[in-house]
Amino acid sequence: MSLRQAARQEIAMTDIDRLSSRFALHDLVSEYCLAVDERELDRFLAIWWENAVWDIEFVDTFVGYEGIRRAVRDVIWPMWQSTAHYCANLRVNFDGPYKASGISSVYCIGNLADGQAANAVGNYYDDFERRGGVWKIVQRRVNQRFFTPLAGISLTPAGNA
Amino acid sequence: MSLRQAARQEIAMTDIDRLSSRFALHDLVSEYCLAVDERELDRFLAIWWENAVWDIEFVDTFVGYEGIRRAVRDVIWPMWQSTAHYCANLRVNFDGPYKASGISSVYCIGNLADGQAANAVGNYYDDFERRGGVWKIVQRRVNQRFFTPLAGISLTPAGNA
Amino acid sequence: MSLRQAARQEIAMTDIDRLSSRFALHDLVSEYCLAVDERELDRFLAIWWENAVWDIEFVDTFVGYEGIRRAVRDVIWPMWQSTAHYCANLRVNFDGPYKASGISSVYCIGNLADGQAANAVGNYYDDFERRGGVWKIVQRRVNQRFFTPLAGISLTPAGNA
Repeated sequence: MSLRQAARQEIAMTDIDRLSSRFALHDLVSEYCLAVDERELDRFLAIWWENAVWDIEFVDTFVGYEGIRRAVRDVIWPMWQSTAHYCANLRVNFDGPYKASGISSVYCIGNLADGQAANAVGNYYDDFERRGGVWKIVQRRVNQRFFTPLAGISLTPAGNA
Repeated sequence: MSLRQAARQEIAMTDIDRLSSRFALHDLVSEYCLAVDERELDRFLAIWWENAVWDIEFVDTFVGYEGIRRAVRDVIWPMWQSTAHYCANLRVNFDGPYKASGISSVYCIGNLADGQAANAVGNYYDDFERRGGVWKIVQRRVNQRFFTPLAGISLTPAGNA
Repeated sequence: MSLRQAARQEIAMTDIDRLSSRFALHDLVSEYCLAVDERELDRFLAIWWENAVWDIEFVDTFVGYEGIRRAVRDVIWPMWQSTAHYCANLRVNFDGPYKASGISSVYCIGNLADGQAANAVGNYYDDFERRGGVWKIVQRRVNQRFFTPLAGISLTPAGNA
């Protein structure tokens, strides 16, 4: 790449491309929540690169689509009857036009397998990569701060009210 | 419109216009929460088109400003003493420069009419339209996943603490 | 400044600059949550101008870095063993290229000093200023709607589960 090309690319990253990329990264973070809650496996896998690493504190480290598939199918979805993930406070840092890192805060509430409500409080530490023009997650480290069963509470389907 | 104009418009949608529209749609979703919580009717009505449809699962379908006014005045505000809506995970898809759809996750906590705290967990499925350069909601479907009274808990005004 | 310069500046504010500024303001709001939760004082101070005013309803008004340092060190961090702040619904209004105001909704959950869980529900009303090209908070008013101890609940470190 010529210096002129490099300069042009850097300029691109500093305005429209950076703004569009910000939204693209935010979309990945949102899609994680929506797809895991709605238990849509293909949609969930689509946010990760095929060599992605998903490191969940106090649980395990899952590698690649095989590992990620195992994490949701064999660990998260059986453990929870239902989940609602809310992700906030996303901060992004770009490391050139092809790499970025992010940090965000997650609140999750749901019913465990036995119907008892619980909430989880944590942070996501993400590494994103852009390959062929597309941003996806290449590594997500989940910092699990709190995991708290909510004694005496079970989330109730609204239709039963 | 000439082909050149159409092409320019499409280009506009793919960069600055798309980015600005993303924020405009996010603002509608935020304003819904803020206005319903602060019980500001005019502010709340301003996010909807006059022929908008608001379909709240397990409650009713409300049509137009008359219906929307009735929904907040006769249903939501009397049912809850107070609400705090938090909307996250907004995903947007544009269907040309004048239509878009969105999905987001909402967590609501508040006190019911009798002072008992409750929370609600759901999703918003939105259709947005741009008319005369302005984006508003033309349809919102509320998927009510959970509605749970929080036994023994009543949210307490901070000034009483 | 000539009229032409003023016009050009206004144009700048209406597109790329406005979009970039929106993200910059959102970053300040996010960083407040992340830094106060992780108890990183320098990171927390970096979001405020040196003459900033932080007015926390039912608590006190804190002025400048000395006041802000006192607020977190002597009031918030001792009062809470841990906090998780989630900020949503951010709405921004620009008042020219150097001033903006914002409103957002915050949900905070954590353990109080004695280990009892509590949540807080409120809104942030912010005034932002851009000085030397950098946006920071010049005033934050915290409207504390609810502060509620969660009887019988203590957030549990995930590693203990």
